[in-house]
Amino acid sequence: MRVGIFGGGQLAQMLVQAAISLGVEIVICERVPDSPAARYTQHTVVGPWEDEAVLAAFARRCDVVTLENEFIDAHLLRRVEELGTPVWPSPATVAVVQDKLWQKERLVVAGLAVPPFRAVDGPDDVLAAAQAFGWPLVLKTRRNGYDGYGNATLRGPADVVPAWERLTRGGSPLLVEAWVPFTRELAVMVARRRDGTTAVYPVVETVQQNHICHVVYAPAAIAPDTAITATELAVAAIQAVDGVGIFGVELFALADGHVLINELAPRPHNSGHYTIEACATSQFEQHLRAVLGWPLGATTMRAPAAVMVNLLGQRNAPINTDAIVAALDVPGAHMHFYGKRDERVGRKMGHVTALGATLRDAEAIARRAAGLVAMPV
Amino acid sequence: MRVGIFGGGQLAQMLVQAAISLGVEIVICERVPDSPAARYTQHTVVGPWEDEAVLAAFARRCDVVTLENEFIDAHLLRRVEELGTPVWPSPATVAVVQDKLWQKERLVVAGLAVPPFRAVDGPDDVLAAAQAFGWPLVLKTRRNGYDGYGNATLRGPADVVPAWERLTRGGSPLLVEAWVPFTRELAVMVARRRDGTTAVYPVVETVQQNHICHVVYAPAAIAPDTAITATELAVAAIQAVDGVGIFGVELFALADGHVLINELAPRPHNSGHYTIEACATSQFEQHLRAVLGWPLGATTMRAPAAVMVNLLGQRNAPINTDAIVAALDVPGAHMHFYGKRDERVGRKMGHVTALGATLRDAEAIARRAAGLVAMPV
Repeated sequence: MRVGIFGGGQLAQMLVQAAISLGVEIVICERVPDSPAARYTQHTVVGPWEDEAVLAAFARRCDVVTLENEFIDAHLLRRVEELGTPVWPSPATVAVVQDKLWQKERLVVAGLAVPPFRAVDGPDDVLAAAQAFGWPLVLKTRRNGYDGYGNATLRGPADVVPAWERLTRGGSPLLVEAWVPFTRELAVMVARRRDGTTAVYPVVETVQQNHICHVVYAPAAIAPDTAITATELAVAAIQAVDGVGIFGVELFALADGHVLINELAPRPHNSGHYTIEACATSQFEQHLRAVLGWPLGATTMRAPAAVMVNLLGQRNAPINTDAIVAALDVPGAHMHFYGKRDERVGRKMGHVTALGATLRDAEAIARRAAGLVAMPV
Repeated sequence: MRVGIFGGGQLAQMLVQAAISLGVEIVICERVPDSPAARYTQHTVVGPWEDEAVLAAFARRCDVVTLENEFIDAHLLRRVEELGTPVWPSPATVAVVQDKLWQKERLVVAGLAVPPFRAVDGPDDVLAAAQAFGWPLVLKTRRNGYDGYGNATLRGPADVVPAWERLTRGGSPLLVEAWVPFTRELAVMVARRRDGTTAVYPVVETVQQNHICHVVYAPAAIAPDTAITATELAVAAIQAVDGVGIFGVELFALADGHVLINELAPRPHNSGHYTIEACATSQFEQHLRAVLGWPLGATTMRAPAAVMVNLLGQRNAPINTDAIVAALDVPGAHMHFYGKRDERVGRKMGHVTALGATLRDAEAIARRAAGLVAMPV
């Protein structure tokens, strides 16, 4: 069985790792050779996704096609289907999810709680939204935003025009959201098959640093009612978009116990990396099972607590192997290095997961290892 | 960092899986294309190992070279070293371990307990050995034996000539060993670096079926003293052969509490597959750490008990994907399918590992899943 993946980054790389256990081969379709995932498969199609010959070569080599990021035009996914290869999540799901306006509209129609939002066509629309929502506001690109690229928090009218100019550079239309006074950011991974069967992972807490996921606590130290609400919202959201595959659902927990959906990701998600060691089935294996229509695996945790810390680049330079090696000396630290050739400030270079009897125990191990990787040379 | 592996079977495949987390790339050197491991790397050198051009191309692409089976002439490993690429375990270690006579002689010199053995040059030597050791005897090829290929148990004089004729067909000289009335077969994985640092995994019990490893119980349900003896013997054995990398040490436990060394394997070993899910560091990651001179990882178990069951081919036919998929529905069963294109009777097609509070719990899960894979089509 061969699964094709649009994209060759670390998410595709970890999908390859999971595929090995399943006897599933992976075909990577990426614009450039030597992507992190392409190093671990004999099947690679290199070229622009918009090139019909590239799409045809890719579709021909795969039994099913999926993606590791949502920044692909849905019409290209539809073209793969026309060429005879199924695509999961479906092009229709990706089209809805990749547009943050459409995504939120779909969630609202399904009766799910999201922060107030509206489409904006110019700075005046943003100022008008501020009348309704109050300051601060969050201005976002509808498409192609990730890790804070494509986001701006507006604290008052003076922030509007600079943010507008910066965010519209990529050509995507924008939307604006009310700023939510959340007490915690939560995330839930949900896997769903085309027959509607779902498997849900524990609710985790994510802590961002400069809009980039930095630490994940599994399970989140929240009230049971909040966990139930978050889980129900997450499953309902993936049903609402008719998702097939694994999805990351980011949520806001408010002081009053309410939970709102922030964003969906139609793919493995940084907040689910902990599942590799901490759960009976990793999010990556689960994604492959889901898109192949195979039985979903158990999502139970194998330890009371797990903490994941992202290894974010500290400087712009070729990767420092010595710093990587030092971190291997921390017992219980599960290191993941993505093999990126160059370190860049803020770039996700890898992650470390530790299990423990408590979140505090696990965090101490993970942070110690992460600290050794980040040490100056 | 690039590690080269002579051989592209399932052991190399699981080394690739471990390498992904370490950001290490793997180069597979195999006689044929499309080996199980070669499917998961962009670096493959295909051709006979004896071909100087193949060796040179392989050595040039690797920072260090290792092996997934010991059936390679040590002079080829020396040639790779001459070409400037280090080889671990060293050619000298492989030369000693791959010859069961030399291996045993080395262990005896180190003062370690092995069953009585002697070299034999013809059927008369076997009969003479029977005078000394009594019946039954075990006749073995000194080189290239595995999974019972290259072994014969002789119950009396009438068995000698047929066994001699069968075993000498491969061209390897033979040795004969006293048959040991063991109560259990044990195994210990030992990792060792060139600086002599070692990491030792728990003692496990292995149960063979037709000379093929069938079930592994981790940890072995044995007296603490027996476990200590087995562990000490295993470490001393790897020191005796100056081993670098991961080694499998097979042992016999006798009714009186004595433990004897059966055989060494200079590579990841079937009895260590359980470490993928059950230990803080898998035998595969540990091997890469050891041959790279990186810190060895913790070997502690993550659960009280683990059981691994091999998935052995039941018939001669193309692989049956439906049977594989059925086994994925067993919660807690960690399935590993090696992606072999054809099933053959007795062939190792994959394995399943389950963790549990007790060996009995884990075994029930693993056997249930294995039973689903083996079901008739």
